[in-house]
This record gives sequence, C-alpha cells and structure tokens, in this order.
Amino acid sequence: MSGYETLLTALDAGVLTVTLDRPGRLNAITPDLVRELLAVLDAADADDEVRAIIVTGAGRAFCAGADLGAGSGAFDHREAGAEHRDLGGLVALRLYASTKPVIAAVNGPAVGAGAGLTLPMDIRLASTTARFGFVYARRGIVPESAAAWFLPRAVGMQRAMEWVATGRIFDAAEALAGGLVRSVHEPDELLPAAIGIAREIAANTAPVSVALSRQLMWRMLGEAHPMAAHRLDSRLMGELGGGPDAAEGIESFLAKRPPAFPGRVSTGLPPGWPWWPEEAFRP
Amino acid sequence: MSGYETLLTALDAGVLTVTLDRPGRLNAITPDLVRELLAVLDAADADDEVRAIIVTGAGRAFCAGADLGAGSGAFDHREAGAEHRDLGGLVALRLYASTKPVIAAVNGPAVGAGAGLTLPMDIRLASTTARFGFVYARRGIVPESAAAWFLPRAVGMQRAMEWVATGRIFDAAEALAGGLVRSVHEPDELLPAAIGIAREIAANTAPVSVALSRQLMWRMLGEAHPMAAHRLDSRLMGELGGGPDAAEGIESFLAKRPPAFPGRVSTGLPPGWPWWPEEAFRP
Amino acid sequence: MSGYETLLTALDAGVLTVTLDRPGRLNAITPDLVRELLAVLDAADADDEVRAIIVTGAGRAFCAGADLGAGSGAFDHREAGAEHRDLGGLVALRLYASTKPVIAAVNGPAVGAGAGLTLPMDIRLASTTARFGFVYARRGIVPESAAAWFLPRAVGMQRAMEWVATGRIFDAAEALAGGLVRSVHEPDELLPAAIGIAREIAANTAPVSVALSRQLMWRMLGEAHPMAAHRLDSRLMGELGGGPDAAEGIESFLAKRPPAFPGRVSTGLPPGWPWWPEEAFRP
Repeated sequence: MSGYETLLTALDAGVLTVTLDRPGRLNAITPDLVRELLAVLDAADADDEVRAIIVTGAGRAFCAGADLGAGSGAFDHREAGAEHRDLGGLVALRLYASTKPVIAAVNGPAVGAGAGLTLPMDIRLASTTARFGFVYARRGIVPESAAAWFLPRAVGMQRAMEWVATGRIFDAAEALAGGLVRSVHEPDELLPAAIGIAREIAANTAPVSVALSRQLMWRMLGEAHPMAAHRLDSRLMGELGGGPDAAEGIESFLAKRPPAFPGRVSTGLPPGWPWWPEEAFRP
Repeated sequence: MSGYETLLTALDAGVLTVTLDRPGRLNAITPDLVRELLAVLDAADADDEVRAIIVTGAGRAFCAGADLGAGSGAFDHREAGAEHRDLGGLVALRLYASTKPVIAAVNGPAVGAGAGLTLPMDIRLASTTARFGFVYARRGIVPESAAAWFLPRAVGMQRAMEWVATGRIFDAAEALAGGLVRSVHEPDELLPAAIGIAREIAANTAPVSVALSRQLMWRMLGEAHPMAAHRLDSRLMGELGGGPDAAEGIESFLAKRPPAFPGRVSTGLPPGWPWWPEEAFRP
Repeated sequence: MSGYETLLTALDAGVLTVTLDRPGRLNAITPDLVRELLAVLDAADADDEVRAIIVTGAGRAFCAGADLGAGSGAFDHREAGAEHRDLGGLVALRLYASTKPVIAAVNGPAVGAGAGLTLPMDIRLASTTARFGFVYARRGIVPESAAAWFLPRAVGMQRAMEWVATGRIFDAAEALAGGLVRSVHEPDELLPAAIGIAREIAANTAPVSVALSRQLMWRMLGEAHPMAAHRLDSRLMGELGGGPDAAEGIESFLAKRPPAFPGRVSTGLPPGWPWWPEEAFRP
C-alpha cells in the first residue's frame, strides 16, 4: 500500500491514515486521485491489519473539489456522452461498500466534490480552519458524488437544501450546528482526535462484527420495514452467535480483560455475504 | 400573478413573497385558498423571474389550519366518499414538485393543516411569536397534508411522535430545539431574514441547477441505494457539465466576479426531465 | 394483565407502566421476559383503558441486554439453525406494530439488546444515572433487535456508526446530545416526567387518532413518495372526518372544554385496517 502519487498512506496500530496529497492544487480531485483512492480502499478492505481509515488533506486544504485548472471545460464530459460516470460518485459508492469504518478529518476547505467526498464516510471531524461548500449551483452544475442521496440523510432536508440552494461556504461551527461534523477541534488536535476514535474501534471490537455492522446499517437505510433487519440479523446471529468471536467477546467481558478476537474480515465474513445483489459500476 | 382573493403576492429582485391573506380567519385554509395556492405555485414555476418563494401570513397568524367556522362538520367529507382528496395534501404534493425553493416565514400560530403546510417547504424560519401544533389527535382526525410522510423526515420520529401524540401547541424555541425551524427571529426581523436567504439564492446560483438540485434531493429521499443518485447525477453532469451555465460558473469563479447564468428553468431543464413517472393527482 | 414473573405492571389514569423486574440480573433479557413482554403488549393493545405505555426497569438498571449468565454460549443459536429468530427482534417488531404510544424511561444502564429495546419505542427519557451501549461489536456479534434499521433513523448514521463501531458505553448527556433521548432528569423526576407526557396524551387526544397516527408515521418512513401518505390520509379523513371523534374534537375545541372522545381502538379502527399486508413472525 504505497507508491501512490496523489496520496500518502500510513498504517499504525490498525489505523490507516490516507492523506490527499496535492497541496499545490488544494488536493483537488483528478482522475489519477480517484483511481488511487479506489485502489487504497480496495487494499484497505483486503488488509486485515487495517481496522479503521482516516482521510485527511495535506497542506491547508482538505479537498477543493474538481480541479478547475482546466478552465471552463472542467465539467465538460460530453465526450463520454450517455456513458459518463461521475468520478466522485465512483469513490462515494466505493466508500459506501467499505468493510472498514472511515473517518474524515477535515483540516481545511472541503468544497464541491471535496465536501461530497466526506458524506459516505461514517464520522466527520473538523478543525476550526475547516470550511464547507456544497457549491454546485454556483458552478452551474448539480450535486454529484451521489451527494443528493447522502446529504439529506446526514443533516436533514432543511439544512441540505439551504446549503445546496445558496451554495455558500460555511465554517466549522455551522457544520457542527447542522450535524455535518460530530466535533470541531483546534488544528493540532484534529488528527489526534480522529486517531482516538479509530483506536477505540481497533482495540475493543471484532473486525467481522464491525464490517457486518457497517454494511447492515447503511443497507438498512434503504429498507422500508424493520422486518428486513430482523431477518438478516437473525440469520447473522445464528451464524456468528456460536462462533469464536462471540465466545471471546463474552469471555473477555466476564473476565474484565481486553478482547483478542480471532476472526478476520478477509476470511471470516459469513456465508451469503454480500447479502445483496449489486451492480458493478466501475469504468 | 395577481387578482387573488385569499393571497397577496409581491415579486422583488427574484423573490416572490406569498402572503396568506384571510387575517380575520387567522388565514385558515378554504378550498378557495387551496385553489389559489396551487395557481400561484404553477405561476411561480412558469415565471423565470421567480428564483425563490417566501410564504408568510397576514396579521397575527401564519395559518390556523382548516376553517372550523362551519362547526362540527368541518372535516366531514363523506359526500366525496372514497374519492375524497385531502386539500392540504394537494398543496403539499405541489410544493414537493416545485422547481423553486420555498421558504416558510412563520409569523404566528401555524396549527393543524397550517403546520403541515410548512413541512414540504424547504426552509422554515419562525418569529418569536410563532406557535406550532400538530393537533390532529385533539380534533379526532389523523395527520393530513401528507404530514405523516414529511414530519418524521424533518424532525425524526421521536419529536414527531411526541408532537402528534400529545397534539400540544408549542413555541418557537421548542420548534428550534426540535429542528422544525432553522432559526427564530424578532417579529420585525423575520421577513428580512427570509428575504436574505432568498436573495442569496437569487444572486449567486444558476436557476436550472437549483431546480434540478431541489428535485434530486427530495426524490433521492425515496431511493434505497446511492446508485440511483450516481446514475442520475452522472447523466445530468454529462448533459450540463459542458453547457453555458457550467462555463459561466467556472469563469465567474476564476474571475472572482458575480455570475450571470444564461440558463432558464422554463427552457433549460435537460432532456428526460422529469425523470420519474408521476401520477397527476389534482381534482 | 398481571401474574407476570419478570414484569410488574400498573395501570393508572390511562397510563400502563411496565417495569422490567429481574433486578438481581440487571433486568437482563430471557426467553421468559420476551414472552411476557409480547403478552403485555398484546394485552395493552386490546385494553381500551390503556392510552400510553411506559417501560422502565426495577432496581439500578434499565436492561443489561442478553443474560450472559450462561457464559460463552449465551449467543449460540446453532441449534435453531436457519430458523433462528432473534428474540429482541420479536419485541422490536411488536413495539413497531403497537397501537399505543410507548415511552422508555431509562433509569440506569441500557446495554446491547437493552439499548436496542428502546429504539422502537416512540419517546425516550433518561435519568442522570442512565448509561447506553450498543456493544455488539465488543461481544463479537452484530446489531440485533432490528437495531440496524432503527438506530440510524433515530440518530443519523454518523452517531449510529460511532456508537456501534466503538461499542462504547456512554452517558445520558451524550445520549441527549446525539438525539437518542429527548430529555434527561434527576432519578426521582424520571418517572413523573414520563407520566406527564403519557397523561398529556391520555387527557387530550382521541385513542383512534393516536393509534392511526402512530402507525401512519412509522409506516410512512418506508414509503418512497409522499403520495403514499396523501392517498392514505385522504382515505382516513374521508372515513373519520364525519365521525363522532371529529365532531367531539371540533365541539370541545370551540367550547374550550376538555374532549370526551367516544371512539375506542378495540372497535373503532376504520375499515381496511391494517392497511398493509404483513407477515406473522412469531415463533
């Protein structure tokens, strides 16, 4: 998991930190950066050493969105015609399918596709220097990165519509008040706070449980009736409840000692996973 | 857009203010008022001069709901039988389908269908004199105006159920704490605040982008999987990304000047709009 | 409604208080307790004297979740094989289908299935001594009790994922900040506060209206389009609007006197109820 040109990666104590690394362009999104993000998420899913992922930005920005360096043609995809697939959406769908929890550590401006990039992540922290902008309507385009699906679910329709219809840039305090981020930190304390949550996951929980829980919760957002969850969690409890992770979970709890779960995501997902039919959607 | 009997309308700098104007009856809803609300929303959608809509009430109330002046038969629709169509619901569905953002400026009591009327609007502001009441169960009826769909999505099931099961009247502070309104203002500052948001939309954003964004976000609430948004926003980006609004959006941004978007809602919605099959549902 | 071994019940002024009563085991869930909870909810639905239900715990805990007294096999359901049905889920689905509003008065720790038990309840109050833990991943299992469906809808995905992925125990203040509970009270004031809400329902609202409203709102969470609510509430308004509860609702309002609604849930649900086809799902 190295040799990337647009990303820095570092793995420590189960926590993979991915740094968008095009600081001279405010970490703006390019096809190369998208390709590398997809690759690093694939690699993280396949690597049992990775228990949680933090995404942050190099330099003063988190991610400025699409790189407008190409000028007024930056959003022009007419060449691809009906086959055009939004690059931010590919990353969003890949994040959605992740088996590892993903934490956004928003260290500076996150604008357009850079703001949308944080939405399929599970947990968002901001520094006091963070800025957010769902600026699509100020650029003559529409919400991409599947943000029209994610944003109202994250902050409710009222906030989502105000931010999208005005397209304005807002600060970390407004992001916190609107529920977009779960906490705001001094710049020096942003990464330590994100790492703290990631390590709390890595130290205490079963990897297979976390992978299944993450997918259960995202997928159940799309189900009309709680019966869907009951059917699925009954099946999963039938499969996992008598297994070694559950035994270790109970024993370590009763003995008041840290757990050492034997199950691994690479080999331990139960039969039937993934439990949904899903179209491939990569170019 | 004039000659209404139950409404006042005023268009200024892209902002259409619609005032419910039956102050002697606390702006209570009648078939005539519904007919005129549907007409003004149709006219606003067709008028490219209208960039955003504000709805408020004349006198001391916002809207007292169904007019109970008829006494105990006010909710009696048995004549219509199985064909009865709730009037508040017709307005709610029309608001849902609007291509222009709608802002509620709740200047006083909003009760029953008057409270429900605000739910399909995008943004809700209250004055300190506002009161809200989802009083259906105190009147022996059920949530109408499709409020059972809108209210839990706006404020979560916990608040929705408390407000509906008790049917109690609550003040602007409770509405703010519960997320029903985005801000509370002194009575004199309510309309200026609403106009401020509306003008921020009108001055900075592309009309076609706002229309598409509004419909994208409301519609995606009903989609199970973010793939639906990715498919649709990819198609829209393919159609709009090379167009004149996107070019102007990028150029004005790079030049740090206000944008002058050429696209108009009346003529500029992309091929395929509306992208859903929808039943007509007007009497 | 008596003779339970694991529950205490008391009915007063329309409010049924159900106390989980295994204080020596922190009210942990057993098959007997599940059976009795299902029975008391059935009885409450059938008893017109019950207008609202409060669930609380005896002693210092609310509910410690599955009883781990059996040791490392506590979650082992392999005997039941593919037919295993999660016990917490049966209670969750029964709560979801209740015609009476249910209020959780969380007096102490609510952990695992004990935390999940509160999610299909409508309103949650906590004492300052309450603790919550969605600890599944610390026990090597997955969210059960259909919590993967209920929790993100109650508090949003960001909070839900943090609580589930870390599995940590958190206090009443964090539960309040995250929207899991609607208020926090001194221990002595918890039950009075819950009773206050329940009595507000009982004293002011029509039982049939509350039953239909509760089901309308939960069911409409699963509907893609507000048209579903409009169709259903139009039909219900056509059926109820000319009925005796609506007449009494309007008359008592106009006369400024307390209402005395004649309708009863046992006999007064309108034709067509339940308006959905639903699978039975009890062992």
